[in-house]
Amino acid sequence: MTDARQHLTLDGAFTMHRGGVLESPTLAYETWGTLNDERDNAILIFTGLSPSAHASSSADDQSAGWWEDMIGSGLPLDTDRYYVICVNSLGSCFGSTGPASVDPKTGEVYRLSFPVLTLEDVADTAWEVVRHLGVDVLHSVVGCSMGGMTGLAFCARHPGKTRGFVSISSAARALPFSIAVRSLQREIVRTDPYWNNGNYTDDKSPITGQRLARKLGMITYRSPEEWIQRFGRERTTSEGKPGDPFQIEFSVESYLESHAQKFTGQFDPNCYLYLSHASDLFDLAEHGGSLEVGFKRMELERVLVIGVTTDILFPVHQQRELADGFETAGHDTRYVELDCIRGHDSFLVDMDAFRPVMCSFFDSCA
Amino acid sequence: MTDARQHLTLDGAFTMHRGGVLESPTLAYETWGTLNDERDNAILIFTGLSPSAHASSSADDQSAGWWEDMIGSGLPLDTDRYYVICVNSLGSCFGSTGPASVDPKTGEVYRLSFPVLTLEDVADTAWEVVRHLGVDVLHSVVGCSMGGMTGLAFCARHPGKTRGFVSISSAARALPFSIAVRSLQREIVRTDPYWNNGNYTDDKSPITGQRLARKLGMITYRSPEEWIQRFGRERTTSEGKPGDPFQIEFSVESYLESHAQKFTGQFDPNCYLYLSHASDLFDLAEHGGSLEVGFKRMELERVLVIGVTTDILFPVHQQRELADGFETAGHDTRYVELDCIRGHDSFLVDMDAFRPVMCSFFDSCA
Repeated sequence: MTDARQHLTLDGAFTMHRGGVLESPTLAYETWGTLNDERDNAILIFTGLSPSAHASSSADDQSAGWWEDMIGSGLPLDTDRYYVICVNSLGSCFGSTGPASVDPKTGEVYRLSFPVLTLEDVADTAWEVVRHLGVDVLHSVVGCSMGGMTGLAFCARHPGKTRGFVSISSAARALPFSIAVRSLQREIVRTDPYWNNGNYTDDKSPITGQRLARKLGMITYRSPEEWIQRFGRERTTSEGKPGDPFQIEFSVESYLESHAQKFTGQFDPNCYLYLSHASDLFDLAEHGGSLEVGFKRMELERVLVIGVTTDILFPVHQQRELADGFETAGHDTRYVELDCIRGHDSFLVDMDAFRPVMCSFFDSCA
Repeated sequence: MTDARQHLTLDGAFTMHRGGVLESPTLAYETWGTLNDERDNAILIFTGLSPSAHASSSADDQSAGWWEDMIGSGLPLDTDRYYVICVNSLGSCFGSTGPASVDPKTGEVYRLSFPVLTLEDVADTAWEVVRHLGVDVLHSVVGCSMGGMTGLAFCARHPGKTRGFVSISSAARALPFSIAVRSLQREIVRTDPYWNNGNYTDDKSPITGQRLARKLGMITYRSPEEWIQRFGRERTTSEGKPGDPFQIEFSVESYLESHAQKFTGQFDPNCYLYLSHASDLFDLAEHGGSLEVGFKRMELERVLVIGVTTDILFPVHQQRELADGFETAGHDTRYVELDCIRGHDSFLVDMDAFRPVMCSFFDSCA
């Protein structure tokens, strides 16, 4: 398979938001469509925790992207009109510098010597990519899940650098339930003996911890309602180990197992820990002392906030808080609450619900 | 501390609901109050997964029980009027026979040779205790959480043996979300290398797995709303390990850690696995082929169903399903939905909300 990724290596040292320095970090990104002569049609996508920059297929990489049905000709992020940019988050492991990268100062993999990562760092490094591409002001920033929080950091730290903002199933700050879930996921990885304080090898890596952490993720990414419809108390037909009284028995267990196995091995464990922790740390109120000031710092012409009623991890009251915050700060805000049954993941899997809302905001899908 | 527990050892073999036999199993139980001459004032409590039979203090054991504020003179389960019985579930580890007990046939601890445990077995063995105490028909059965499902099994298998039934934060059957959570908790224990396929020792036991499984439990036993009020984004003052970028930082993490440490070491890991699995297996519909038939099989004069709106693990729609099921089957049913903020655990910690409802049903607290 060919690779559509491009890379930008920043000149010199990048100082991290909470201290520490990265020497010439690299950012991987992909683009779709063309920057127009006015340079005012660029849309920047901030991803959730785990996706790469490969949000959609292209001539250079025809494999389906993680938002394949959202980006393209005639789709909501219409590549006939918009220049769409997606950056692999700083700290991730799909081409951008992160804990799994080699520290040029030491020649060793960063591992836990990587400085504390924040979503502010993710936002600031992505902005370097955008400027490198010749864009001074973005048409819009679109942030999903963790990416929505990254987008808030961007809008608060770079006022006037995007005219529009779309927040999808995100939050103004992490609340204790989601902190508890993510903290437990991290501890599950860290207590796998093969994590070895971050010094795992290819042969001995915390795949069990990753697999179980991913299962906990899946439990919070989907919704109980979906699973009642989809699985109920259906038994699985897969064969278990004889003599194991706790083998997989219900279809929902089998579903979690297959999803968790897919994830394991794809994502570097230390990168996962850093990005997960960055989500817990984010609080828009740190940008000025309160949420109100944080929203006020932004300069936005148009805002769209989308929430899903069955989302456990980023619940609707946090979506309403976002919409109210933008509105109160004087930004022209549209709030849409979707009744999708598939919880937090709906923006990835329920295109029929999301497409019209996105088309309306981007004046696309004509 | 003295011990208020009494023990009943059943004569001969007890055949388990899903096959297998226990040789002369023992049941630990405690009682409060006095059986009246008519022998019609006995209340049997079925516990959740982890509690012992020590539901309340007594002269023989003055330590506070797990339902101290519910049982006693002038309390809802008024020991001046009622004879209250609580049995440690078969399969548990507080005096009743379970996977941590010695199999008299082999002289070895059962461990995974313990037969598959079901809540039907828990119900049937508790009934043996009740009969041993000279009770032919109970005034009421009260079941909390898993104990509510045990109570349903009891009512369906022993029609006419209790006149009243109180279901608290329970369900007619386990649904996929709670199955997924419990299955993951079990896997967290089982993948701890010290679990050793059930053959752990006192020195090397899966305390890490138990600690993490308990944290996941706590996440589902309380409510996100409670934690927003209680913790918000408050930081903990406890000192972490220097150099660990993922040390405990938020108060909610510290809260989970202290609760999990308290649980670990108290509960035998294999017993936990068996009881957790028994909860997944329960389905009232197996008693006759449908929920409708299951409810119809019961012979009850009075039913009270209590649910809590913030309960994640046994959500209110399952409480309504129970109430509707009893009602449709012709049992005189009262349904109370409480707005307690502390989720599934509310029946243990929000006595001000539960007391009046229970007093009304038991005509107590005059």
